[in-house]
Amino acid sequence: MTTEVSTATQAQQAKSQHTLAPSGSMRARMEALIRQKQNEIVGAMEKIDGKQFFRDHWERPDGTGEGITAAIEDGNVIERGGALISVVHGKLPEAAVRKMRENHSSLRDKPDGDLPYWVCGLSMIMHPRNPMAPTVHLNYRYFETQNEDGSPQAWWFGGGADLTPYYLFEEDAKLFHKCLKNACDKYDPRYYPDFKAWCDKYFVNHHRGEARGIGGIFFDDLVDEDPEKVFSFVTACFNAFLESYPVILERRKDMPFTPEQKQWQLIRRGRYVEFNLLHDRGTQFGILAPGARIESILISLPLNVSWRYNFHPKEGSEEAKLVEVLKSPREWV
Amino acid sequence: MTTEVSTATQAQQAKSQHTLAPSGSMRARMEALIRQKQNEIVGAMEKIDGKQFFRDHWERPDGTGEGITAAIEDGNVIERGGALISVVHGKLPEAAVRKMRENHSSLRDKPDGDLPYWVCGLSMIMHPRNPMAPTVHLNYRYFETQNEDGSPQAWWFGGGADLTPYYLFEEDAKLFHKCLKNACDKYDPRYYPDFKAWCDKYFVNHHRGEARGIGGIFFDDLVDEDPEKVFSFVTACFNAFLESYPVILERRKDMPFTPEQKQWQLIRRGRYVEFNLLHDRGTQFGILAPGARIESILISLPLNVSWRYNFHPKEGSEEAKLVEVLKSPREWV
Repeated sequence: MTTEVSTATQAQQAKSQHTLAPSGSMRARMEALIRQKQNEIVGAMEKIDGKQFFRDHWERPDGTGEGITAAIEDGNVIERGGALISVVHGKLPEAAVRKMRENHSSLRDKPDGDLPYWVCGLSMIMHPRNPMAPTVHLNYRYFETQNEDGSPQAWWFGGGADLTPYYLFEEDAKLFHKCLKNACDKYDPRYYPDFKAWCDKYFVNHHRGEARGIGGIFFDDLVDEDPEKVFSFVTACFNAFLESYPVILERRKDMPFTPEQKQWQLIRRGRYVEFNLLHDRGTQFGILAPGARIESILISLPLNVSWRYNFHPKEGSEEAKLVEVLKSPREWV
Repeated sequence: MTTEVSTATQAQQAKSQHTLAPSGSMRARMEALIRQKQNEIVGAMEKIDGKQFFRDHWERPDGTGEGITAAIEDGNVIERGGALISVVHGKLPEAAVRKMRENHSSLRDKPDGDLPYWVCGLSMIMHPRNPMAPTVHLNYRYFETQNEDGSPQAWWFGGGADLTPYYLFEEDAKLFHKCLKNACDKYDPRYYPDFKAWCDKYFVNHHRGEARGIGGIFFDDLVDEDPEKVFSFVTACFNAFLESYPVILERRKDMPFTPEQKQWQLIRRGRYVEFNLLHDRGTQFGILAPGARIESILISLPLNVSWRYNFHPKEGSEEAKLVEVLKSPREWV
C-alpha cells in the first residue's frame, strides 16, 4: 500500500479546484456517487471474501487529479480485483477536442482551442478464484467541458458492465441481464436493446471471432435534455450490479471444480488479457497517457494466466457450450 | 498436431507458384535457408530439452502461402516455445504500398497500383522453465515485390534477435552480443552499433519506461548493391544465435531456484505479454491480417504468466539489479 503525497501547496490547489464545483452541481454529485458506490462495492466483496481490500490513495503531483485504487489479491474468493475511482481535470489540446467531436455531438458547436475538462469515474473488475464464478467488469464515468467561468459546457455519461463466465450458468446470465434491463427500462425502452447490442459489438476478440463474455450493457456519449434523468439512470446501473453480481458470486464461490476446469479458466483468462491489451480503447488510451498509473489500469488483468497452443474443448463439453455462445451472442431476457 | 489441407488443385497451384522461383533466385535460397535453420534450431533445442517439438504444417486454402509451426509445450527445459517458418505471396493493395514506401526506399520509384509481393521468414521464441535461463526471440525475413514477369523489383531483409533474462548473468549477455557483433563486423562495422541501438529503441515497454530485455540487434529495410552480402549476413546472424543461446541454456537450465524466483519470472513474463500485445508491430499486424494464424502468432506468449499490483523488488536484490539495466540499456561488448 503506497500513497503518493504531493507537496502541501499542490494538494491544496487540487482540493480547492475540486471544491470549486457548486455543491449541487453534477460534478459534485457524480463524484459523491462514485465514492459511495466504491465503498458499497468493496464492502459487498469484502463481506463475501472475508479478506479486506487494500486502499491506495494517489494525487497527481501537479494537483490536477486524485483517486483511490481499492484492490485485492489472493483473496479467499477473489483471486484479483480492483475498484478504482479517479477525479481528474485539465485542458484538452485542440487536436484531442477535434478527435472527440467525432463521437460526441454536444462538443460539435463549441469553440476551437484548448478546452478545460473535468472527468470522474469508477472502474471495477473482479476475477474470482473458482472457475464456476464469472469475471465481471463495470465502468461508469461523467465527462464535462467547461466555460471560462468553470460552468459546464458540453457533458456526457458513459459506461457499462459485462460478465465473463468460464462455465455458462444460464440463470447467472439471466439475472445479470435482467437487473440491467430493469434499470434501463425505467428510463427509456430503447436503452437496454441499444446498449446490449453496443456491448456485444464492443467486447469482441476480433482476432478470434468470439466475444469476451456474455455481455451486459455499454454506452457512451449519453446525454438528455434532463441531466437528472441520466444521473439517476447511472445510479440505477450501479445498483443493478450490486443486486446481481454478489448473488452470482455466492452461488458459485464454493462449487467443486477439477484441475482441468481451473486450467480452462486460466486459458480463458488469456483471452481476457488479449482483449484488454489488443482491443480495449480505454486500456490503450489510459496506458499511453502521460503520467498514467499503469498499475491501477492493469489491475484489470488476472493474477494467473496461461496460453496453450490450439486448445479446443471437446465437442459437446461444457467448455464447448460456452465457446458456442461466445461465437454468437444470445438474448438473455 | 493438425494439418490444414487445401484442395488438390489449390495446393498444386501453390506449389507451382513456389517453384516458379528460379532455383538460384534469392527467393528460393532464402526459403531453403529458413527451412534449414528451423531444423537446426529445433534440433539444438530438442537435444537440450530431451522432448520433441511437434510440427504443424499449414497451407492457405487459396494456395497463396504455407508454413510449418514447430512448437513445444511443457518440455523438460523449455516451458513453451516455437520456431515458425512461412512463405507467403499475394498482391499488396495500393494503400499498403504507399504506407510501405515511408520505410522502404527501394519501393519509392515503383509504379502505383496493386503490387505482387513474396515474403518468407523464420520467427522463433523460447521461454525456458528455469528462471535463471533467459527467454530469447529471433526473426529474420526476406521481402520482395515483383515485376509482371515475376522477376524481383524491390527487395529487402529484416529481422534481429534479442535476449530477455529474468536474472542477469553478465557472461550470458556478453556471449549473446559478442556472437551477434562478430556476425555484423564481418560485413559492415556500422551494422552492430546501429542495429544494437535500433533494438534498444524498439523493444521497449514505453508505458513502464523499461526495455523488454537486454537487447541484441534489430534491423529493417536492409539492402545493398550486392544482395549476396546481405544474404550471407543474415546467414551469419542465424549462426550467431546457434553459437550463443544453446550455450547459455545449458549453463542455466539446471540451476537451483526458489519459488520466489519462479514468481519473479512469472511477473516479468507479464511484461513480455504487455510488450507483444501493446507495442509489437509484428504481432499487431499479424493478428489483424485477414486469415491470420492466431495460434502460431501467439506462440510467442509464455505458458504461465502472473500480474501483481505494484510489485517492486527489494533494493540491492538481484531482481532490482535486472530492472536497473532494463531502465538504462548497457553496452555489452
